[in-house]
Amino acid sequence: MNTIYTILMMLGTLVLAISGSLTSMEKRFDIFGVVIIAFVTAVGGGTLRDMLINRDVFWLVDSSYIYIIIGGSIFAIIFRKALDHLRKILLLFDTLGLALFTILGAEIGLNYDLSFISCVILATITGVVGGILRDVLVNEIPVIFQKEIYATISILGAILFLLLQYISFNDTATHLIPIFLIIILRLLVVRFQISLPSIYKREKVQ
Amino acid sequence: MNTIYTILMMLGTLVLAISGSLTSMEKRFDIFGVVIIAFVTAVGGGTLRDMLINRDVFWLVDSSYIYIIIGGSIFAIIFRKALDHLRKILLLFDTLGLALFTILGAEIGLNYDLSFISCVILATITGVVGGILRDVLVNEIPVIFQKEIYATISILGAILFLLLQYISFNDTATHLIPIFLIIILRLLVVRFQISLPSIYKREKVQ
Amino acid sequence: MNTIYTILMMLGTLVLAISGSLTSMEKRFDIFGVVIIAFVTAVGGGTLRDMLINRDVFWLVDSSYIYIIIGGSIFAIIFRKALDHLRKILLLFDTLGLALFTILGAEIGLNYDLSFISCVILATITGVVGGILRDVLVNEIPVIFQKEIYATISILGAILFLLLQYISFNDTATHLIPIFLIIILRLLVVRFQISLPSIYKREKVQ
Repeated sequence: MNTIYTILMMLGTLVLAISGSLTSMEKRFDIFGVVIIAFVTAVGGGTLRDMLINRDVFWLVDSSYIYIIIGGSIFAIIFRKALDHLRKILLLFDTLGLALFTILGAEIGLNYDLSFISCVILATITGVVGGILRDVLVNEIPVIFQKEIYATISILGAILFLLLQYISFNDTATHLIPIFLIIILRLLVVRFQISLPSIYKREKVQ
Repeated sequence: MNTIYTILMMLGTLVLAISGSLTSMEKRFDIFGVVIIAFVTAVGGGTLRDMLINRDVFWLVDSSYIYIIIGGSIFAIIFRKALDHLRKILLLFDTLGLALFTILGAEIGLNYDLSFISCVILATITGVVGGILRDVLVNEIPVIFQKEIYATISILGAILFLLLQYISFNDTATHLIPIFLIIILRLLVVRFQISLPSIYKREKVQ
Repeated sequence: MNTIYTILMMLGTLVLAISGSLTSMEKRFDIFGVVIIAFVTAVGGGTLRDMLINRDVFWLVDSSYIYIIIGGSIFAIIFRKALDHLRKILLLFDTLGLALFTILGAEIGLNYDLSFISCVILATITGVVGGILRDVLVNEIPVIFQKEIYATISILGAILFLLLQYISFNDTATHLIPIFLIIILRLLVVRFQISLPSIYKREKVQ
């Protein structure tokens, strides 16, 4: 269990650091700026989660996360030419981070004996807050919630994970299936520009 | 005492959830987006308050707040046609939430033996932070502090509550009078478009 | 040691309160608005630091910080005519606050036995978060990270302080030297409009 924790957190940290670096390089930040945005993107969600449940903040307890972030930034800077189609690769890393951190947040919620719905919220916070902070800090205009579907997918993934956990499904599958669900849903949504109907538009159709 | 707590928190949560839902419906969010904004509006202030004083975050301890928020969102969605003049009703719910959460924050500050001025600040944070987060997340341009008067009214209500508390006034009146003060001040301010003079403008008149 | 703590915190709080007041007066806020922005600017960084390491939030434990902030705001309001060239004086107070709070954050990190790199991050958070919140709340468009160099200077100052601390240098000099380094670097940067090369621009030169 502890191993799955560590793998989810380290991998999620790495991919979100790369996602933050790519976003800030697109905006032509200097080197320190790239690392700072990578840091905020990678630890934002987990830091808020830990502060909410009064858990020791993960990157203050274990500095290796900080080195992973610095490593991810350097990787993104070095291979920025190879990462030519930035937007597509950014989407992949961002989606992987969303999936890994959502499941991690749900799992930590279970370990803290939170209710089903609190686990879902903790999972979504862990999954999306880093990306929201990145967008607020990097974009000129904060357009956070035009993509509420981002959070919706995180909620669906968390619910599936918790249901699989309750029926004591195979442990590896319990983790992998919702991770894949989140990745597939996000890519489908982006590919086909799906959006849930807004309450208002539907009203006008009536 | 505990009962007044619970009533203030549940009612405040409900009205701010409705306020958040109405705001996000005006911006044509999808269903999940409406619930998320309702959640942030309703719990934002109380969550920051609880994290500041190292209190267990209220909605993680008691999931019923989450169900109240979901219920408030559904209510707002269903009755969106009846709530035709959204802006006026939004103002009412928003003001009621400001009043209830301000007094609740001051009361929790007293229970934690904070100083008079710290209680005022805790009250104001509890009262206004949810609305600020809602505005930051929903509006294209964050125009938060053009309405500093919002916070000013919260400060005045908290001071009155604390003074009444110190002179051991009738307990129910101690709660109701500042709540009514906040509501009346806010409605007057909106009705007559009152604003405190800015330091700078006054300088120019001299 | 405790004395240095207190001096750093009180002086840093005062200068950042003045910096926040001057910024909000430029934007023509009302009196309460000026005090609120002064408060957020002065306590923002330290509050996040205290919440991260589970330390009692400094201004809730000791109300004198709140009175310093109110005093600083009143000072800035009264002497606003004398402070004619607002921008230059604002820069000075802002830079002094950055320097004092950076060193304070690094020192608190050491006291909590954090690793070198965690101390650097805690120092930078303490130094820059108040100014970032001020800019987000006051500016129409959040232009926070166009000045990443602000954070970079804080990082360099923290690293120097920690190195001096490890070699057990004279205690007063250990504090004063990095404070002066931060002030000089910031003023040089502003004077000569220095910016680190962005990753992207450099790429184009190749």
